[in-house]
Amino acid sequence: MQFHHDGYVSGDPRIQPAQGTGVNRPEDLPDEVDVLIVGSGPAGMLLAAQLSQYPSVTTRIIERRAGRLKVGQADGIQARSVETFQAFGFAERITQEAYRITSTSFWGPRDDDPAQIHRTKRTDDDPNGISEFEHLIVNQARVLDYFAEAALHGPARIEPDFGIEFVSQQRDDHPTHPVLVTIRDSGATREQEDAALAAATGLGAEAARLAVNEATAAPATQASEAPTQQIRAKYVVGCDGARSAVRRSMGRQLLGDQAFHAWGVMDVLTVSDFPDVRMKCAIQSAAGSILLIPREGGHLARFYVDLGEVATDDAGKVRTTDIHDTIARANAILSPYTLEVKDVAWYSVYEVGHRLCDRFDDGVDAAGGEREPRVFIAGDACHTHSAKAGQGMNVSMQDGFNLGWKLGAVLTGQSPDALLATYSAERQVVAQNLIDYDKQWSSLMAKKTAELTDPDEMTRFYVDQAEFLYGFRTQYEPSMITGSATHQALAAGFPIGKRFKSYPVARVADANFVQLGHHHRADGRWRLYAFADASGEALARFAEAAPVVLSRFTPADSDEDAVFDVKVVLQDAWQDVDLGAVPPIFLPRTGSLGLVDYEKVYAAIAPRDCQPAAPKMAVGTDMDADIFDARSVSRDGALVLVRPDMYVAHVLPLDAVGELEEFLTGSVLPG
Amino acid sequence: MQFHHDGYVSGDPRIQPAQGTGVNRPEDLPDEVDVLIVGSGPAGMLLAAQLSQYPSVTTRIIERRAGRLKVGQADGIQARSVETFQAFGFAERITQEAYRITSTSFWGPRDDDPAQIHRTKRTDDDPNGISEFEHLIVNQARVLDYFAEAALHGPARIEPDFGIEFVSQQRDDHPTHPVLVTIRDSGATREQEDAALAAATGLGAEAARLAVNEATAAPATQASEAPTQQIRAKYVVGCDGARSAVRRSMGRQLLGDQAFHAWGVMDVLTVSDFPDVRMKCAIQSAAGSILLIPREGGHLARFYVDLGEVATDDAGKVRTTDIHDTIARANAILSPYTLEVKDVAWYSVYEVGHRLCDRFDDGVDAAGGEREPRVFIAGDACHTHSAKAGQGMNVSMQDGFNLGWKLGAVLTGQSPDALLATYSAERQVVAQNLIDYDKQWSSLMAKKTAELTDPDEMTRFYVDQAEFLYGFRTQYEPSMITGSATHQALAAGFPIGKRFKSYPVARVADANFVQLGHHHRADGRWRLYAFADASGEALARFAEAAPVVLSRFTPADSDEDAVFDVKVVLQDAWQDVDLGAVPPIFLPRTGSLGLVDYEKVYAAIAPRDCQPAAPKMAVGTDMDADIFDARSVSRDGALVLVRPDMYVAHVLPLDAVGELEEFLTGSVLPG
Ligand SMILES: Cc1cc2nc3c(=O)[nH]c(=O)nc-3n(C[C@H](O)[C@H](O)[C@H](O)COP(=O)(O)OP(=O)(O)OC[C@H]3O[C@@H](n4cnc5c(N)ncnc54)[C@H](O)[C@@H]3O)c2cc1C
Ligand SMILES: Cc1cc2nc3c(=O)[nH]c(=O)nc-3n(C[C@H](O)[C@H](O)[C@H](O)COP(=O)(O)OP(=O)(O)OC[C@H]3O[C@@H](n4cnc5c(N)ncnc54)[C@H](O)[C@@H]3O)c2cc1C
Repeated sequence: MQFHHDGYVSGDPRIQPAQGTGVNRPEDLPDEVDVLIVGSGPAGMLLAAQLSQYPSVTTRIIERRAGRLKVGQADGIQARSVETFQAFGFAERITQEAYRITSTSFWGPRDDDPAQIHRTKRTDDDPNGISEFEHLIVNQARVLDYFAEAALHGPARIEPDFGIEFVSQQRDDHPTHPVLVTIRDSGATREQEDAALAAATGLGAEAARLAVNEATAAPATQASEAPTQQIRAKYVVGCDGARSAVRRSMGRQLLGDQAFHAWGVMDVLTVSDFPDVRMKCAIQSAAGSILLIPREGGHLARFYVDLGEVATDDAGKVRTTDIHDTIARANAILSPYTLEVKDVAWYSVYEVGHRLCDRFDDGVDAAGGEREPRVFIAGDACHTHSAKAGQGMNVSMQDGFNLGWKLGAVLTGQSPDALLATYSAERQVVAQNLIDYDKQWSSLMAKKTAELTDPDEMTRFYVDQAEFLYGFRTQYEPSMITGSATHQALAAGFPIGKRFKSYPVARVADANFVQLGHHHRADGRWRLYAFADASGEALARFAEAAPVVLSRFTPADSDEDAVFDVKVVLQDAWQDVDLGAVPPIFLPRTGSLGLVDYEKVYAAIAPRDCQPAAPKMAVGTDMDADIFDARSVSRDGALVLVRPDMYVAHVLPLDAVGELEEFLTGSVLPG
Repeated sequence: MQFHHDGYVSGDPRIQPAQGTGVNRPEDLPDEVDVLIVGSGPAGMLLAAQLSQYPSVTTRIIERRAGRLKVGQADGIQARSVETFQAFGFAERITQEAYRITSTSFWGPRDDDPAQIHRTKRTDDDPNGISEFEHLIVNQARVLDYFAEAALHGPARIEPDFGIEFVSQQRDDHPTHPVLVTIRDSGATREQEDAALAAATGLGAEAARLAVNEATAAPATQASEAPTQQIRAKYVVGCDGARSAVRRSMGRQLLGDQAFHAWGVMDVLTVSDFPDVRMKCAIQSAAGSILLIPREGGHLARFYVDLGEVATDDAGKVRTTDIHDTIARANAILSPYTLEVKDVAWYSVYEVGHRLCDRFDDGVDAAGGEREPRVFIAGDACHTHSAKAGQGMNVSMQDGFNLGWKLGAVLTGQSPDALLATYSAERQVVAQNLIDYDKQWSSLMAKKTAELTDPDEMTRFYVDQAEFLYGFRTQYEPSMITGSATHQALAAGFPIGKRFKSYPVARVADANFVQLGHHHRADGRWRLYAFADASGEALARFAEAAPVVLSRFTPADSDEDAVFDVKVVLQDAWQDVDLGAVPPIFLPRTGSLGLVDYEKVYAAIAPRDCQPAAPKMAVGTDMDADIFDARSVSRDGALVLVRPDMYVAHVLPLDAVGELEEFLTGSVLPG
């Protein structure tokens, strides 16, 4: 963590000094804002945390609820999300309080007595070392809390405006703020919400029927009758969930499955003799199937009890499934084991289908003509999928991560407006792939009961698809921010368009062994990694030529690394590096005091030599391979450019400063 | 982290629910308290955090300053302290923001030109794997902040009462609260303190002279003239630093060195071409010597510029050493390198001698007769030593850790009053050893300049003494809470009287690989580890006999693990353990809902098999040795009893429940 560079920071260094719009931020919504985010779920809160790094931008986030989410909804956190949390500064803290999945157990009917289950298989959760981060389970509410903290502690000091409902929006030709938004007081109060929660989670049969299910198409809350009010925005982002009013106001729809699939989902404190009650389990029995997800804190567990496809003429009947029925069903499935529910933290009948919007922005007008997008949707507002693969919250956050820096870059004049069109282009494909995958997985899980003779089919799929499951399959196509693969061979282990996969290196100045990628903070900056050639000659030429080029894209009055954070990875042992001979581009003097930044000079090192105390590593890391070996980086050197959202933008020869400039000219404006 | 066991916790699980005295805690000091802590330095704040776990005890902590410490004083954090932070729940967070020492550089005069320095040696900081935790550098202010958070988030909700000064105390024969304490408003204000700090750290020559040095004998602050007030306490703990008024009121003195040693200490933001400016360095040159400690945040560094022995007739002259002189001297020492100071965060002339009090409590009366101790001193109030070994803050915290649970246990009726006499008995010896060590180290550092022909002497001493340096040499003598070594051979790697040294194990219920010792929270509970025999027969006998015995020492209305947290380490592979067959003592049902605690059943595992993701391990851990091998635990099983302050109390045969009961009878009262 770097701080003190503008003078001594006495308190918590995670709290950045307020700047710009963060200084004396008005309590009430202003009449005009740069960005209006609708909805404080995972997509919206990540966006708020990201935009909090842009204090010259006025961002507000409105939320219909009266306050923070307290319980329920999603809980599966892929390693890709934990990487993202690391960039926002809270990976370690949330990991500490989360449940960590290391192993999955599969249970099925016994051959001799199909009414009784037994364990058929155990698999490692991440046998291939997809990431150095873990696969976690923790309530969505806590994820939102951490993003809320990041948003509040960023220089723009963003906090949600609770109790405000988005009603509609329309575009006009206002010269600066063309989106006219209608909002109103949502009428929500904490008391009502608490009462609804208590009712939904109480063990009384009547109460359970009240369990709301916001993911379904039917409106679950009463519309407010408060008077409406209008505000203007440059950009609006609808992160308002599956029944998105922003999407509706754009005239778009979720298309896909006609029928929904339903689960009885309960977060419960139990006493059970089922031995794997603290393990992730897929349980199939004659009585049905359960996905069991142990939860944070050592006692809580979530049971997804499969309620099957919802008939098209169901008319909400499935939603009245009583929690007692769900518990009874769980007991039947678990036989010979029993489950005594001591307390219900949350209960919901979760009905969801595979549905997708064909476009995530308003970049076409009513007549079908292309235009500059001003309104976006993200997360469940544009795609929904089954709970089985635990993707919902994760993909929604990545939507937000993809869009956040783009809005920041355009609004601060760092990038051309055209950048914003890449959001829908990039993320719609991801959502489509996800839905295809999820369908396959769901049908496999459904098929299983009938096919117990090959218990490996499902586990094989599960393991093969781990890269997908953990959020690392995404690969963006060439565009203004993603280069072509011409020079990919120079760094084959950093595929262009995929997320930059970290690896241990030695930080020269303080001999700390660190994950190179963990220095990538969600601060809107690009990262340029110069992998040195063995002789250092090409590196010297790069160090000579690059400052001139990069400074063209960097505002004159800001630090030289304000837009591009340039780091070098040398081939020498860290002990042999003479810091005095390292070119100044890698030891820039920044901040108001012009102090040297020593955290840009790294040396390749084999993990075995990271003594004392190597950083956390992915499973199966070759202890003898340094980053050049492990990521197939040419010993003649290479440049790896990484986008602010951690995706590899380009791979180029170390000497190709001209080509770099050409590429940047498309995506970054002159400073 | 365990939570949710009394029902769902929606917010930050680190914030424990308020209980007892923590509910509606009065803002003003009450007239009577159970424990009055004087001083909110490291010793006092650890005590506050510890006693916050005892909500039936009324604890207050008074502090002369107007608010939190902002900057300065100590910054070296030994691995033993980080272990302690782990027990208080903030090791990971503070590690994240701290500087981490991996290597120490030694610099000396060049042979060809003694006016110029060169690097003579580099040594690993912890080559022997003394702990799985790191050696950190972070400002004392942040350490205090974290303890303040722990104190505030504990059930007793303890917060310092700032601006109150301890004046004196006297014992009388009040039946319950025999310590009558005189206090007053200290008159301190934030404005004054900020002005003093600004003056002390400004670069102006006049200002620098104002640098206060609280560690010296001369009073640095004006005595308040506010009217005094009296309150009564059952116990008083003086954590009020080197010039302790509590010590004075007990009629005790620090004895030792006549002369002090002085350093110009500056926390500075610099630009320098000295290549090791981000490494811990011991620098010797013809112009003097510097101990350079890089600091948190990547830019700050502390320079200890040696000002030598202070003449006995110095009369405070050394204290007027100007910061410009100190900077000039640093430049002379660093030649041919230069140091440009851009900003001074803190500057002090730190004068200190090796001094020690012969007793840390008032357990003798004026006539020399033994009595029950009621007033204690801890930290700098009873021992001071040079800054070179970076021990001050660390040893002070361990004083607090030793005393805290004893006060808690006596005040809650868990242990006999006699327990309190063990505090002075145990800690005075530690302080004496420390001072002996520190003298040796200091004289070696002083000698070095003349003896450059053997640059290894100092580094050898440094490495040999690492166990001491990191805080792990402490070994308490047999007493009512520390057993004799009769059965030590059953677990030779857990020496009785030393801190329990953690090791990786597999938690059976969720297949998480964890450090066994990290489950030890600073919650005042004893830990009893049952290392199973291979056949499990002795374990079965233990599991049969132990509940009866342990319940005798456990209050009937509390959880069965409220006093003793009993865990088992099995020899089987975790996959082979049948949780259904594990005796109930290791799967107790606790909390208001009677939920099963699954985090007490462990299996031995070789670190190599901890896949995916092994826990952090000490350097040099044998990847093939499980905990039985690594800690030389008998394969016939053993019991290891650990005190609430993490020191091994006893090692016994697995079958020796009778001997266990006998031992406990001396230290724990019937429940
Ligand atoms: C009841 C429920 C149960 C779920 N259960 C599971 C599960 O068991 N497993 C799983 O993996 N996933 C589950 N999900 C899905 C998962 O929570 C989502 O995929 C994820 O939250 C999507 O994030 P998001 O930010 O896109 O939207 P959401 O988290 O849905 O956030 C949308 C936010 O917008 C607010 N909002 C909506 N309309 C307006 C408006 N007009 N004005 C202002 N604010 C508005 C909402 O109050 C909400 O806070 C569940 C979702 C819901 C709603
Ligand atoms: C100015 C200074 C510089 C230091 N520099 C270094 C260094 O460079 N390196 C190093 O390793 N160590 C240094 N130390 C030592 C290190 O800080 C101590 O070893 C450590 O703080 C001891 O902790 P403690 O809790 O015993 O006492 P302290 O941290 O000294 O805390 C004592 C507290 O008691 C308060 N107090 C004192 N008298 C009263 C009273 N009558 N009533 C109420 N409150 C009172 C004080 O305000 C203070 O907050 C320094 C200490 C000081 C004071």
